[in-house]
Amino acid sequence: MTGVLTIVGLGPGDARHRTPAATEAIADAEAVYGYSAYIDACDDILRPDQFVVRGRMTEEKLRAEQAVDAAAGGRRVVLVSSGDAGVYGMATLALSNAYEIEETARPEVRVLPGVTAALAASALVGAPLAHDFACLTLSDLLTPWEEVERRLRAVAEADLAIALYNPRSKGRPWQLDRAREVLLERRAPTTPVALVADIARDGQRVELTTLADLDCGKVGMTTTVLVGSSTTRRFGDWLVTPRSGSGRSAG
Amino acid sequence: MTGVLTIVGLGPGDARHRTPAATEAIADAEAVYGYSAYIDACDDILRPDQFVVRGRMTEEKLRAEQAVDAAAGGRRVVLVSSGDAGVYGMATLALSNAYEIEETARPEVRVLPGVTAALAASALVGAPLAHDFACLTLSDLLTPWEEVERRLRAVAEADLAIALYNPRSKGRPWQLDRAREVLLERRAPTTPVALVADIARDGQRVELTTLADLDCGKVGMTTTVLVGSSTTRRFGDWLVTPRSGSGRSAG
Repeated sequence: MTGVLTIVGLGPGDARHRTPAATEAIADAEAVYGYSAYIDACDDILRPDQFVVRGRMTEEKLRAEQAVDAAAGGRRVVLVSSGDAGVYGMATLALSNAYEIEETARPEVRVLPGVTAALAASALVGAPLAHDFACLTLSDLLTPWEEVERRLRAVAEADLAIALYNPRSKGRPWQLDRAREVLLERRAPTTPVALVADIARDGQRVELTTLADLDCGKVGMTTTVLVGSSTTRRFGDWLVTPRSGSGRSAG
Repeated sequence: MTGVLTIVGLGPGDARHRTPAATEAIADAEAVYGYSAYIDACDDILRPDQFVVRGRMTEEKLRAEQAVDAAAGGRRVVLVSSGDAGVYGMATLALSNAYEIEETARPEVRVLPGVTAALAASALVGAPLAHDFACLTLSDLLTPWEEVERRLRAVAEADLAIALYNPRSKGRPWQLDRAREVLLERRAPTTPVALVADIARDGQRVELTTLADLDCGKVGMTTTVLVGSSTTRRFGDWLVTPRSGSGRSAG
């Protein structure tokens, strides 16, 4: 008999932004797999009778395989990601692994949505993503940098608001500076920018700035960077994008 | 004394995808404003002692004003949207209204994030938005159609996965057909497409197709349309986008 694998997004930080569906799935699981920090984030639900695997940062592939195998073996398994598991999360790896299993032995797989960092960061500063927007990662570990730059250019050209994931880390120190240059080719220096770090966790930080004044040195691994469109305005401590599309057509 | 306005996204459909933060804010409110269908969606929390305003579809502006005024008058007020209030939701209108009030009389405003339709639809079909993606609306009520088309072209050119909001209604019957044509200029006819309607509600429907085979007549006001990137693959009933970026650079 095959089991069920539920791939769960915990939302950002604490349990306030975790959906009841995610909480139920974890409570109902026989085995829970996740990166150790995400296991900590659902510690309030876990019980001693559950088989819990606290994984390491670099072992996503192994973790996805283990979770799929456990479900194929007949268990009710949950694999947790932060934010939304389907946005730069674990869902792709796990679904790809599950599909490699012969159909008769393949576990049932479900994905539960969550509040991804772009939405959580946006809410903290108002409504910068209120009209069309894109989520882009600046990580060039799996994608050549020229491809990342091409996407930035296209999205800037289309005048979308942008949420940048993985903007900067010790191993990727220059990418955000370069992204800022690329965006400045097509966006005004006064374009509002928000840096939101450690969302819904101790030490949560919000800083509003502009493309011209953006100090990339302040940005770390747990920061989400939001860049306004040409219509995004700063009202005091809020960033607001009107729902009427591009500034080119405002009238 | 000024009050507090909390702008809340309920997530899609039923309460399973509504965050505890949203539920708490509604339970704690003295007054709750929202479009009638969204008031229904949080009926399980509402109490007879709360002042509840069930608004009409076309009266978003009035509703935002009323909610802001009630908060400025000293009440704890919640304004509800479906999905995420900051994504094509009520947050922009309410924040803009609040900012027009003199600072000393302005209520405190908070925005709580929610599971937006793109994420909920994506989870139901696997992980099509797992790498870079854009949310675009096809509504040309507030944005000229040529601007919508320009954005579609740029996003297709950048090879992002796409979630299309407001794809089609009685009053906007041709826009999705035209969007399909624009996307087919830059995406393969075999590009996977998902139609997801009435998410987490009675009658939820999921249909997988391709850009070539997309029958726009099947799409209605409550449908979210997901369009894959060049790397999105169909595995049985799942759509999966790898986390390695564009097909141009896969190797």
